[in-house]
Amino acid sequence: MHVKKRNTRKYAPVGARPGTLVLDTNKEITDLELIRFSSDHFEQKNISLAELDKLNEELHLPQKKVNEIFWLNVSGLGNEQVLRKIQEIFRIHELTLADIVNVPQRPKIEEQEDYVLIISQMLWLKDPSTISNEQVSILFGKNFVITFQEDPGDVFDPVRDRLKKSKGTIRKSGSDYLAYALIDSIIDNYFPILESIGEILEDLESALISNPDKDTLKRIYNLKRQLLNIRRTIWPHREVFSAILRDEFQSIKKSTRVYIRDVYDHTIEIIDVIENYREIAAGFMDVYLSSVSNKLNDVMKVLTIISTIFMPLSFIAGVYGMNFENMPELKTTYGYPVLLTIMTLIGLGMILWFKKKGWFKI
Amino acid sequence: MHVKKRNTRKYAPVGARPGTLVLDTNKEITDLELIRFSSDHFEQKNISLAELDKLNEELHLPQKKVNEIFWLNVSGLGNEQVLRKIQEIFRIHELTLADIVNVPQRPKIEEQEDYVLIISQMLWLKDPSTISNEQVSILFGKNFVITFQEDPGDVFDPVRDRLKKSKGTIRKSGSDYLAYALIDSIIDNYFPILESIGEILEDLESALISNPDKDTLKRIYNLKRQLLNIRRTIWPHREVFSAILRDEFQSIKKSTRVYIRDVYDHTIEIIDVIENYREIAAGFMDVYLSSVSNKLNDVMKVLTIISTIFMPLSFIAGVYGMNFENMPELKTTYGYPVLLTIMTLIGLGMILWFKKKGWFKI
Amino acid sequence: MHVKKRNTRKYAPVGARPGTLVLDTNKEITDLELIRFSSDHFEQKNISLAELDKLNEELHLPQKKVNEIFWLNVSGLGNEQVLRKIQEIFRIHELTLADIVNVPQRPKIEEQEDYVLIISQMLWLKDPSTISNEQVSILFGKNFVITFQEDPGDVFDPVRDRLKKSKGTIRKSGSDYLAYALIDSIIDNYFPILESIGEILEDLESALISNPDKDTLKRIYNLKRQLLNIRRTIWPHREVFSAILRDEFQSIKKSTRVYIRDVYDHTIEIIDVIENYREIAAGFMDVYLSSVSNKLNDVMKVLTIISTIFMPLSFIAGVYGMNFENMPELKTTYGYPVLLTIMTLIGLGMILWFKKKGWFKI
Amino acid sequence: MHVKKRNTRKYAPVGARPGTLVLDTNKEITDLELIRFSSDHFEQKNISLAELDKLNEELHLPQKKVNEIFWLNVSGLGNEQVLRKIQEIFRIHELTLADIVNVPQRPKIEEQEDYVLIISQMLWLKDPSTISNEQVSILFGKNFVITFQEDPGDVFDPVRDRLKKSKGTIRKSGSDYLAYALIDSIIDNYFPILESIGEILEDLESALISNPDKDTLKRIYNLKRQLLNIRRTIWPHREVFSAILRDEFQSIKKSTRVYIRDVYDHTIEIIDVIENYREIAAGFMDVYLSSVSNKLNDVMKVLTIISTIFMPLSFIAGVYGMNFENMPELKTTYGYPVLLTIMTLIGLGMILWFKKKGWFKI
Amino acid sequence: MHVKKRNTRKYAPVGARPGTLVLDTNKEITDLELIRFSSDHFEQKNISLAELDKLNEELHLPQKKVNEIFWLNVSGLGNEQVLRKIQEIFRIHELTLADIVNVPQRPKIEEQEDYVLIISQMLWLKDPSTISNEQVSILFGKNFVITFQEDPGDVFDPVRDRLKKSKGTIRKSGSDYLAYALIDSIIDNYFPILESIGEILEDLESALISNPDKDTLKRIYNLKRQLLNIRRTIWPHREVFSAILRDEFQSIKKSTRVYIRDVYDHTIEIIDVIENYREIAAGFMDVYLSSVSNKLNDVMKVLTIISTIFMPLSFIAGVYGMNFENMPELKTTYGYPVLLTIMTLIGLGMILWFKKKGWFKI
Repeated sequence: MHVKKRNTRKYAPVGARPGTLVLDTNKEITDLELIRFSSDHFEQKNISLAELDKLNEELHLPQKKVNEIFWLNVSGLGNEQVLRKIQEIFRIHELTLADIVNVPQRPKIEEQEDYVLIISQMLWLKDPSTISNEQVSILFGKNFVITFQEDPGDVFDPVRDRLKKSKGTIRKSGSDYLAYALIDSIIDNYFPILESIGEILEDLESALISNPDKDTLKRIYNLKRQLLNIRRTIWPHREVFSAILRDEFQSIKKSTRVYIRDVYDHTIEIIDVIENYREIAAGFMDVYLSSVSNKLNDVMKVLTIISTIFMPLSFIAGVYGMNFENMPELKTTYGYPVLLTIMTLIGLGMILWFKKKGWFKI
Repeated sequence: MHVKKRNTRKYAPVGARPGTLVLDTNKEITDLELIRFSSDHFEQKNISLAELDKLNEELHLPQKKVNEIFWLNVSGLGNEQVLRKIQEIFRIHELTLADIVNVPQRPKIEEQEDYVLIISQMLWLKDPSTISNEQVSILFGKNFVITFQEDPGDVFDPVRDRLKKSKGTIRKSGSDYLAYALIDSIIDNYFPILESIGEILEDLESALISNPDKDTLKRIYNLKRQLLNIRRTIWPHREVFSAILRDEFQSIKKSTRVYIRDVYDHTIEIIDVIENYREIAAGFMDVYLSSVSNKLNDVMKVLTIISTIFMPLSFIAGVYGMNFENMPELKTTYGYPVLLTIMTLIGLGMILWFKKKGWFKI
Repeated sequence: MHVKKRNTRKYAPVGARPGTLVLDTNKEITDLELIRFSSDHFEQKNISLAELDKLNEELHLPQKKVNEIFWLNVSGLGNEQVLRKIQEIFRIHELTLADIVNVPQRPKIEEQEDYVLIISQMLWLKDPSTISNEQVSILFGKNFVITFQEDPGDVFDPVRDRLKKSKGTIRKSGSDYLAYALIDSIIDNYFPILESIGEILEDLESALISNPDKDTLKRIYNLKRQLLNIRRTIWPHREVFSAILRDEFQSIKKSTRVYIRDVYDHTIEIIDVIENYREIAAGFMDVYLSSVSNKLNDVMKVLTIISTIFMPLSFIAGVYGMNFENMPELKTTYGYPVLLTIMTLIGLGMILWFKKKGWFKI
Repeated sequence: MHVKKRNTRKYAPVGARPGTLVLDTNKEITDLELIRFSSDHFEQKNISLAELDKLNEELHLPQKKVNEIFWLNVSGLGNEQVLRKIQEIFRIHELTLADIVNVPQRPKIEEQEDYVLIISQMLWLKDPSTISNEQVSILFGKNFVITFQEDPGDVFDPVRDRLKKSKGTIRKSGSDYLAYALIDSIIDNYFPILESIGEILEDLESALISNPDKDTLKRIYNLKRQLLNIRRTIWPHREVFSAILRDEFQSIKKSTRVYIRDVYDHTIEIIDVIENYREIAAGFMDVYLSSVSNKLNDVMKVLTIISTIFMPLSFIAGVYGMNFENMPELKTTYGYPVLLTIMTLIGLGMILWFKKKGWFKI
Repeated sequence: MHVKKRNTRKYAPVGARPGTLVLDTNKEITDLELIRFSSDHFEQKNISLAELDKLNEELHLPQKKVNEIFWLNVSGLGNEQVLRKIQEIFRIHELTLADIVNVPQRPKIEEQEDYVLIISQMLWLKDPSTISNEQVSILFGKNFVITFQEDPGDVFDPVRDRLKKSKGTIRKSGSDYLAYALIDSIIDNYFPILESIGEILEDLESALISNPDKDTLKRIYNLKRQLLNIRRTIWPHREVFSAILRDEFQSIKKSTRVYIRDVYDHTIEIIDVIENYREIAAGFMDVYLSSVSNKLNDVMKVLTIISTIFMPLSFIAGVYGMNFENMPELKTTYGYPVLLTIMTLIGLGMILWFKKKGWFKI
């Protein structure tokens, strides 16, 4: 499993005035999806820049139906014209827009006069071995929610579905509940990732015990790095939710806060699991190092056994290979078989000695 | 000793509406055990779904005896019909029910309008070498306590016994005291586990000192992992109890809080012991690594001693095995015995030198 | 130095009602020592259970001299009858008595209506190499102090002496001051232990530098484990004293609190020293591992030097030991001495090369 | 990449009275650059000491235009006369001046009666492989900002540019906004450094996996040291900004604080990245050590394979090189080829055995 | 550089009444130096015990000049008579005197009715390679400052000088400012120590990279231990100063607190540097261990190369040293030179193989 490398952060030119946007010009196309719903109707369509203008008018009509909620989903952050238009319609602060566009930002929550901004990182398994990583910015006010994503494709389909089929209370509750539902989807998608990492951990564990090799080291290393990444992504979410639970964000109703408490608990659980995995992975490293040392020990034992048996024997053979004229043993009839017997005994003695030392578990 | 692997967490489909239940369909049977008692009577029976309905009526009768307390113990979480019925009778929030059913959850405490929910993890030694791990959710209101367990079989028999025989103040005190008695049973069951881990630690310690081998490494590793698991289970309990001691949960009487303080102290003690064990286990790893290195040293010393003694001797034998025609030593009468003597002296000299270097402690 | 192993914690049967006493039946004898004093008189005697009853009456006489203070010292916790009697006389809560009897408990402080309970751990050097470890529970009210010890023999003799000889203000001050004097004695007894560990550290340090061996490893390990134990004992004391300094325990007079501040400072100092020792001991482990590696290096250098010198030489000797008929060198008159010279030069060359590489520091 | 070594801190003579200046006499030249602007005019010039006097008068004229803001940029801290003049004009406390001159100081913020002092550390990439490190002290009051730098050359050109071209709101806002813009420039310059360290990390990672050698160790070490330095520089900035967000510094308007929040977020992000890099670098060290051990294993395997194959073979050859008169094998016609075959089989057997043991992955 | 070993703490007999003094009887001589000054006069002399009595009278004269300040500097703590006299004159609490006399104590600050006590540890470089360590207790009241030192000789000469020459505001400010000036001197003296440790670090770093040996290990170890000591000394100072900045010590004027803030900043800086040094030293240990492993690798490579080249060659020579009667190669004319050529080729082949494996960087 590997994390799809995202484009590294594009920084504004150093010293540029605050709020400068750094657009990724390769990604000009910006899809706009508008969902409008109230307890009794639901409408979903893709809109153009021109229709955005119309939306503007409608939003500021005095007789606007207060219980209708707009969800504008912006996919792709490359089109400045669209972004500026949205900024204008919803009166978005220049720093807020910069936080949305200049990805990746650290997850955070900020309340402005007319809206609350939640920046989150969406991690999900695109296919079983690739983790996709994308910033999602959720901005919501009295009767609208705007979500900004880096690329098309997201984890919000179940929410769209619930809106359409009016499951649960989602259509009757306000914009803050919708924002909750979206962030809940994002956090829920961490669990399948944890599950697949859990499987990797188990694979690694049995590999460690059966036959650790260099590849195992690389896999442990990759795992640790991945855990580091996920941890860095999930931790700030905790601060976001605990801020909601602690502070009185005016735009978040008390009834919604009960649900936020639930997401908070999930976040804590994810952090818990991650920290647990990290400790396990750190333990893997220790076990790996010990195994390598043990293997070295085994190798050295083989070498030592071989050397200890054959060096003395070779020496004896060498002695009787000397060319002294006067070596009486050489002339005896049974000298040779006697010596062979002695050598065999020496060899066997060595082997028994090693057996006693416990070196023959190999 | 090993922890019985529990089924891994079953996640709700990602993006499902909050409160979605994930039922383990293999476990449909849900046992319902009802105990009702007041200071002067006690009744215990297994009830059916139909009887649950009757209970409903009785609970909401205006003339209901206020000092009678119900304890409903639900074993098995696989029957949605039963769960929904209970939810309805006791007005349980959808998120609360999800926390109860979608096991395992992190231990926590939550107060709702009509009840307090305590989620706990029950760890106990089923037999001397197996730790059983199960979520117990305790939900109690003014005059009822409901406990939800994953499987039949629990650690509550002593409490049932005390209720029956009216030991102590348990029958005179309210539902919060019963909840305390139950959670106290759960926490108390951690101690025998600590004890058995303590014995494993001592075994390991003497194995480390006498003869560490690869199996020792595996056992240290298993121990560390087990400690990690228990620690992860017990820590959140601490937060639960300290929240009770700190906050004013309306449903927990001040007289009960004195007892909660006692459970809190036990929890702190368990955490203390666990952290202590973890440090000891970490020390084991260091000692193990050092021992492996020491062993390698010993192996290498044997090899070096053998090589250093026999290599020069073999060389000398090799010299006199050369076939030069003009080697005057070969022709002398005493050349051979003199050379043998010299070789013996060289060998002894080497041995003495190693003795002086302290390599012969082996 | 080793810590005398205490009996491991005896747990109440799991699920037993709170306050169940777990008595060590091997230790039934419970000594009762009563000291009563006021500013102008002092009386010390051992009393029986019957006399305890008389004490009861006396305590509740209306005309009881308010400025007389009782100190009841209970040695041995095996006699339930005595304990229950004391509980009755001094109106001790069932949980308090359980904390006193079911040793060892984590040090803590608790205020009840009529008394304050301080649980402490008494560590002292029984002889230069044995640390004795015992729980002391100090319970004091308006005009009485009760101390409970596991075994006869304690560190309170200097306090008894000061009471008798009326040194300092101890006889004029209240029961809280006496409690302070007792706990002060306990904490002061940690210092000689620190001192003797300091000496062990210095011994180990010089052993590490001069000649580390397997025994050194074992001693480092033992030291670390001992420090872990002492640390675990002293840390909770800190919380006890800081709670006194912070909270307003009604039974502790402000004038006494100045002295508690002093004990608190001592505790901090002990913790400081322990943490320092722990870091030093951790450093020992690193140095030990490095030394083992260095030693291995030295062993291997010897082996390599020997092999590198004699392998080529043996090869050359082997070449001239071959039986080819046509080997002209063998027939020359000076072939043999010339070859010996060449061999010597090769050997010396190797030695010089190793010298240059710095391998001959050995 | 390396950090340009700065002159180590020059300490005032120990015990000197507080506020003693320690001037770097090698750097006497002090450039004074004055920028004055209001919403409708902009003026930039280098001024002399004499002109500084004139500025003094002007500043204290009663009819001074309140909405004109002065920015005095002092480059070089070697000229005491100039520094004292500035101290006098702007009523700078002696300790403040000492903090400005006796570089380097830890970043901090301090409010005095007439001004706020922010001490910051400017880190920027002078060229791709050199990090320049310089203290910048920003002192601002009602209508003035003074910046003190150690050397000419800074990261403020974009700010000068924005002032000149009146981009953004910078000319309409007060002195506190200008101070923000300057500190924002400093913090923004940490990002390119992080980027270049990120590249070094990736280089190192692939070097670690492909072919770690001693140079890799040195590079890891250098990297860790560099991260340590940057971390030590950036952490106190966090405290500075969080103090602004938390406290009510009178001189910083609420509208400016929104922007400070932005710089604060950047600082947190930098710290996050640094801590992440530090963990990765620590992981590198583990992997490196494992790799070295693995390499040793490989070397030893080669040695063991060679020894195990040739030692027995050499021994056999040695046996038949013995000079016993009665060795019947020597006289058989096929003794030699048979023995050669046996030797080959032994050799092949050994190789197969090693293959089975998995030692031939090399 | 080494720290002069101080006498280890002399403990009061265990259980002695609080405030018991433990006098170092080897050091009976106690020097008394009295400086008295006001804004317009200055007087400095050594006084005797008798003159101390006179001072007593003078202090309590009703018409005492309020703006005159006494600084009594006590060097040596061995003379109980003098100490008791001072205790009496300045009404020093028994515990305060014990803290002053029973050195070393942890740095702390305490306010009593009539005075403030600051306990500090004075570390200074007596000569370039010896750090002297001494407890200095500063006790100051409305118009007096008393300093207690263990030995004659201190770091206060610059303060005496400033008093004499009336530099700065020192003579016009109160006793709290003088106390500040003294503690400032003590803290300032940590910087030269840091500097010299910085140099040691740099020496060690280059030693590590060029040629690490056993001495390097010892030096790293010593360095770590020294840093541990300094850290343990400086940390509590931080608490002292932050207590002054936080609390309202009545005896410390607000104008003085600005200066304390400066000392506080210095203390933070010292701690920062120490922690940085500790991390660097920890990194040294890693690098050292890696270097030792690398060296082992190098040694083993030499051994393996030699063995791999000469073992097969020796085997071949052994084969042709066998005495079979029927070995046709032996009888050929060119058998010998052909074999020599084959051997050379084998040897060269081995060398090339090792070159390819990269083992010849040695």
